[in-house]
Amino acid sequence: MRVLILGGDGYLGWPTALRFSARGHEVSVVDNFSRRRWHKEHGTDSLTPIRSLDERVSAWHEISGDRIRRYVGSVEDGDFLDEVVAETRPDAVIHYGEQPSAPYSMISRERAVETQQTNVIGTLNLLFSMRDHVPDCHLVKLGTMGEYGTPNIDIEEGFIEIEHNGRKDTLPYPKMAGSFYHLTKVHDSHNIHFTCRIWGLRSTDLNQGVVYGLETDETLLDERLATRFDYDDVFGTALNRFCVQAVIGHPLTVYGKGGQTRGYLNIVDTLQCVELAALNPPVEGEYRVFNQFTEQFSVRDLAEIVKRAGGEVGIEVIVDPIENPRVEAEEHYYNPKHTKLLDLGLQPHLLSDELVKHELGVIERHKDRVIMDHILPRDRWRPPPRSRT
Amino acid sequence: MRVLILGGDGYLGWPTALRFSARGHEVSVVDNFSRRRWHKEHGTDSLTPIRSLDERVSAWHEISGDRIRRYVGSVEDGDFLDEVVAETRPDAVIHYGEQPSAPYSMISRERAVETQQTNVIGTLNLLFSMRDHVPDCHLVKLGTMGEYGTPNIDIEEGFIEIEHNGRKDTLPYPKMAGSFYHLTKVHDSHNIHFTCRIWGLRSTDLNQGVVYGLETDETLLDERLATRFDYDDVFGTALNRFCVQAVIGHPLTVYGKGGQTRGYLNIVDTLQCVELAALNPPVEGEYRVFNQFTEQFSVRDLAEIVKRAGGEVGIEVIVDPIENPRVEAEEHYYNPKHTKLLDLGLQPHLLSDELVKHELGVIERHKDRVIMDHILPRDRWRPPPRSRT
Repeated sequence: MRVLILGGDGYLGWPTALRFSARGHEVSVVDNFSRRRWHKEHGTDSLTPIRSLDERVSAWHEISGDRIRRYVGSVEDGDFLDEVVAETRPDAVIHYGEQPSAPYSMISRERAVETQQTNVIGTLNLLFSMRDHVPDCHLVKLGTMGEYGTPNIDIEEGFIEIEHNGRKDTLPYPKMAGSFYHLTKVHDSHNIHFTCRIWGLRSTDLNQGVVYGLETDETLLDERLATRFDYDDVFGTALNRFCVQAVIGHPLTVYGKGGQTRGYLNIVDTLQCVELAALNPPVEGEYRVFNQFTEQFSVRDLAEIVKRAGGEVGIEVIVDPIENPRVEAEEHYYNPKHTKLLDLGLQPHLLSDELVKHELGVIERHKDRVIMDHILPRDRWRPPPRSRT
Repeated sequence: MRVLILGGDGYLGWPTALRFSARGHEVSVVDNFSRRRWHKEHGTDSLTPIRSLDERVSAWHEISGDRIRRYVGSVEDGDFLDEVVAETRPDAVIHYGEQPSAPYSMISRERAVETQQTNVIGTLNLLFSMRDHVPDCHLVKLGTMGEYGTPNIDIEEGFIEIEHNGRKDTLPYPKMAGSFYHLTKVHDSHNIHFTCRIWGLRSTDLNQGVVYGLETDETLLDERLATRFDYDDVFGTALNRFCVQAVIGHPLTVYGKGGQTRGYLNIVDTLQCVELAALNPPVEGEYRVFNQFTEQFSVRDLAEIVKRAGGEVGIEVIVDPIENPRVEAEEHYYNPKHTKLLDLGLQPHLLSDELVKHELGVIERHKDRVIMDHILPRDRWRPPPRSRT
């Protein structure tokens, strides 16, 4: 299978490229290194030392004998992307090529606008290129569980049957996203669904939970293949951040009451899910949504797990809730369905004390790289109180 | 009340400016003349001769003694918009400042991208300016009934109570928009709703039906105050186009079976609705949606009405269905609610043979201005059949 991976230099994109290449697929990656640039601008960096894309690709060739083609450019540049799609003629496009941070999108008007442009226009460009060059190609798009928000009813996988005034229809599940970043994924979902309906494109929208972990079968083969690992206030995510905080002796930054519950999954399960989706494409015109996570935790739960695992390896972990910089429900009903990927054969790697202890150990090896200034959140999502004049 | 009208040089924006000015409000308008530019590029023009914004504003001052302030610039330019909002400190922003044509948005990748950028980024810029300068200002946003598509259940006004697996919640009504233009309105709705939730902004989203008519109380005062009237394949809308086709002896271009049913309203009712919304603002943090139309018709119904009214004034009208350039259901269930504006006091001006006859008469006076090349649709929304290789 010819696979084109957008955002192929990123946390998930790079290990995905390795995985597909290792399985014998013909892999091309696109990246404009905006993730590396954002970190530079923000004064942050990956905990793991990572190589340039060129070095990574060379190392992979040396190790596996397989070549990954690389294209450097932005998905926002429609002509560039169009050329790449025309040249690579992918059977599947795996689209991670978006600004992925909710806090980043909330920093300022400029960052919110940048996020909406990068994500929504990039995906729009891709849809046109697929229509014009590879209409039967399968778009595997990374969405987010955050598109749904925290409704007071069960969350279904993308669509819900509604009975209303004696009639029935199955319609897109209502969306209540919680940041400008999450909103871009909602917009993408609507745009993609539309092109499946009118152009007959086919797509799997993977509404992913929060990913944790830093190693995959392929990245472990050589340190030059390591993927990035972010722990800062902007690009870091809950469990990964807590593990770093535990190792450096910083109190775990639980936001508010800590009852915020989300779906989580191990990075190796992300690769498994993306592969399962790619190997089982939808039919022409089909837009399907899979909720991609393996188990759900509250932030409090996660802090407790890290505290317990830390204790077992002699680290004293302090949990110290701080004022919530976000605007979100801190206690809420949460029951999202996630059976479709299991039905395709997903074998979950569930979170365990062993896994957290291993992650703590890996982080310990790199702890001199931690930039202390970026542990605590610095941006508030709520505006300052109004002066009523 | 201080009122800022975005898109104040347009078909609806200009009459809205006149209306609010005539009622004693302090009116400022913003426009970058993109509508005029799009027509120039497309080789089309308003049926009614229209003056420049400067001439309009001067004429209005001469006639009424009232001044309308004008700002020339793009809502996509966040700094520009921010200055305008800071300077005018509006109590209400009435936002028509978007690319309003579905066919235009479907012409090409470039037009689709332009539409998404103009509309979504423009509105995003506005939300930040409101947060920073006038957090209690009321955003009256023009949405569209097209956001809902044609679901097989009744359409509610913005939100729907869903009972699911024994639990209940009231959630945003699911959206199934039918063009890249309509999708931008869906995206705007999600973005606005979010800022009401997290920043406490207040907004009324007016999901408007198709507007017809070309005169309002104020535009009739002087020919220099006339608003634009579009009948072409890209910017013209159903009833207005049919009336022009009837006058010039062109068969009415019903698309396909003609069962496509939509909500419609007279331009004078648009002004009435916008005014009712502005005079009855929502509370802090409230995002409300009104379905803004007065009655519903199928395309077939409209053609029949024009044919009958034409016959009464001696015009022989031919109805000649053509292949549908759009991708849409040509027969479907359609039952959208629209009681909230009636509850606020809307007095509908319903469509009548008299009204159509009057419109035919006005068009007759300008029929030498009709550009014949742009009566039939030229863009197809469906891609060419696939070559399976």
